Amino acid sequence: MGGAQEFSYENSWALVGRARRRHRQGMTGPRFTKLVETLPSTVPFVGPEVQERQRGAPFDARLGANESVFGPSPFAVAAMQDATTECWQYADPTNHDLISALSARLSTTHAHIIVGEGIDGLLGYLVRMLVAPGDPVVTSDGAYPTFNYHVAGFGGVLHKVPYKDDHENVDALMEMARSVEAKLVYLANPDNPMGSWHSGSVIEKALDALPDGTLLILDEAYIEFAPHGTAPEIDPDDPRVIRLRTFSKAHGMAGARVGYGIGAPELIKSFDKVRNHFGMSRIAQAGALAALEDDAWLEEVVELVAEARNRIGAIARANGLTPLPSATNFVAIDCGEDGAFAKRVLDGLIAEGVFVRMPFVAPGNRAIRVSAGRPVDLDIFEKALPKALAAARK
Amino acid sequence: MGGAQEFSYENSWALVGRARRRHRQGMTGPRFTKLVETLPSTVPFVGPEVQERQRGAPFDARLGANESVFGPSPFAVAAMQDATTECWQYADPTNHDLISALSARLSTTHAHIIVGEGIDGLLGYLVRMLVAPGDPVVTSDGAYPTFNYHVAGFGGVLHKVPYKDDHENVDALMEMARSVEAKLVYLANPDNPMGSWHSGSVIEKALDALPDGTLLILDEAYIEFAPHGTAPEIDPDDPRVIRLRTFSKAHGMAGARVGYGIGAPELIKSFDKVRNHFGMSRIAQAGALAALEDDAWLEEVVELVAEARNRIGAIARANGLTPLPSATNFVAIDCGEDGAFAKRVLDGLIAEGVFVRMPFVAPGNRAIRVSAGRPVDLDIFEKALPKALAAARK
Repeated sequence: MGGAQEFSYENSWALVGRARRRHRQGMTGPRFTKLVETLPSTVPFVGPEVQERQRGAPFDARLGANESVFGPSPFAVAAMQDATTECWQYADPTNHDLISALSARLSTTHAHIIVGEGIDGLLGYLVRMLVAPGDPVVTSDGAYPTFNYHVAGFGGVLHKVPYKDDHENVDALMEMARSVEAKLVYLANPDNPMGSWHSGSVIEKALDALPDGTLLILDEAYIEFAPHGTAPEIDPDDPRVIRLRTFSKAHGMAGARVGYGIGAPELIKSFDKVRNHFGMSRIAQAGALAALEDDAWLEEVVELVAEARNRIGAIARANGLTPLPSATNFVAIDCGEDGAFAKRVLDGLIAEGVFVRMPFVAPGNRAIRVSAGRPVDLDIFEKALPKALAAARK
Repeated sequence: MGGAQEFSYENSWALVGRARRRHRQGMTGPRFTKLVETLPSTVPFVGPEVQERQRGAPFDARLGANESVFGPSPFAVAAMQDATTECWQYADPTNHDLISALSARLSTTHAHIIVGEGIDGLLGYLVRMLVAPGDPVVTSDGAYPTFNYHVAGFGGVLHKVPYKDDHENVDALMEMARSVEAKLVYLANPDNPMGSWHSGSVIEKALDALPDGTLLILDEAYIEFAPHGTAPEIDPDDPRVIRLRTFSKAHGMAGARVGYGIGAPELIKSFDKVRNHFGMSRIAQAGALAALEDDAWLEEVVELVAEARNRIGAIARANGLTPLPSATNFVAIDCGEDGAFAKRVLDGLIAEGVFVRMPFVAPGNRAIRVSAGRPVDLDIFEKALPKALAAARK
């Protein structure tokens, strides 16, 4: 058990690179699956850090990823700081305490809630559970690229429905789902990247138009920012839908990775077939638990975001641009011309030190997307926008 | 942009459970893939928190999951605490800074390193990339259950090789890989759950016995605790092997979820096809970066673990049991009888408030597995073991 042996932490380092001698040229590499061989090595989004390294300077305002610059609740920060010293322990793989707190808030049972590594992680598990190669999936053309990434990653066939007046076209999504017998339909309400939304009753009606055997993924990442009545009333036992929510947006914990899903127990239980049971951070769960109890902070953030949306709208209008109505923590600003022009505006803002993004697909790509910021962030945006516009018009 | 709308954080809560009216009985649920339909809803390991809830009391000593009760480096704790306030930001999806630091320590390039959500997360990605339904995979019978869980989860066929004298049987693993034309061979060195190890030269030789087109997954989660010479010398460009390492064990950050892989660039790049690009915790990465620079802490932990192993061995011998040699942060204690007896000893320890686990498969299951603890933890173990043995012998 040790004794005379020379144990050595140096095993960790330096031994990898030395023995170039051992590698024989011409050895066969691993044999990937046929599906994986066809996939591109891709990144759904380029992170701002990559752009910062490319431009050789940090951004002055970080308004591109719909993060909450207002940060997490101070109670969440304190809980996470306390939890750092106990992060030698794996998190409870059943995520019991967080699920308890969520189910109490949501008036469901434990069996209706799944906690996972952000909505991104849960989307990956969902697609894996339902989509085999060739299976049809429906989404909006220009909606969340990470969902599309997962669908492609499991060989699903995406059927895309155009936006209608900058809104996800719910009727057309349901119609497409029926026509292709979709396994999954993805619908974000409120929507990203346009910021538009439907009232909850529209979603409730859509559910009844959903074909038998199709699961609706209702992505409610931005629901806290939306007007009263945007969240539909759905029986948590309803097997036709799973709602996804997150601590990344209003709760200001994007970098901690906590999302959750609300659905019928049979579906929720199925996540245990595929999920990474010990995948949750213990620190993040402690933070989420504390965040859940701080309604005052949530309310304050929602108010600050509403103010920021107004200010972004005012800045846009002062520059002759059109802000689109938003029920999220960002505003899509219609730059009034085509995608190439909006891209030049975007590039100009980035050159001025403002991290923003834009919708990928026409006609949404006539807009740039600006996340809610503090007054100091929006001051920077306000100064940068006229310069970016001038450069774009040259 | 807000204005007259009543935005409401209350969208988050309470709307889910209300409208029971909307659920029509008899609706078809989602259609799972054929593969997922065959999978059990399972948990590779039951967590200690579940057992604590069942027994209605916390454990007095947590020695069952090979966590490092000595905790992370104080610098890592400080870095994580600092990072909590910036966790409103997503982590850099390229994990650039951590990969830079790792590649500098390991004398590789960036292109040789992948960072992921613990070794568990990386194992899931690897299996997904290489194993289609029916594909053969080789491991040792009684080795890491989470690997087996992932293989089953992607429909792979596991071929298991018995341990030999409580060691993974490297020659037999290679022979089995040849005979079934395995896509993957899993080998942990040092081994879990027995704690045994092979010298690096054995692994180097095994690599040359590996059939063409088979990838060796060399799990080195415990490498920091092993005698000098346990880490093989492998060209990082060698396409036949990927080494997996972690911040969960010697670095004391199991609950933060940071693992990494070292392999040939083509394989490393392929992770970008399937991984959750924004899956890493920003807080965890800050901690890992700081931990990497604190060699003094790592050395101290390795020494404390060696002392703890000696003490566990002494306690075992004082009770007439046989500690097995270990190059890890745990000791498998041969209880001298069969699996049923060891299970009774284990249950007795748990009843006494000591969380321990045991190997699942005979003949390893004649042992219980006790993680290195502080003197105070091992005092509790020392008191509990005779009682557990007496109860087991009744």
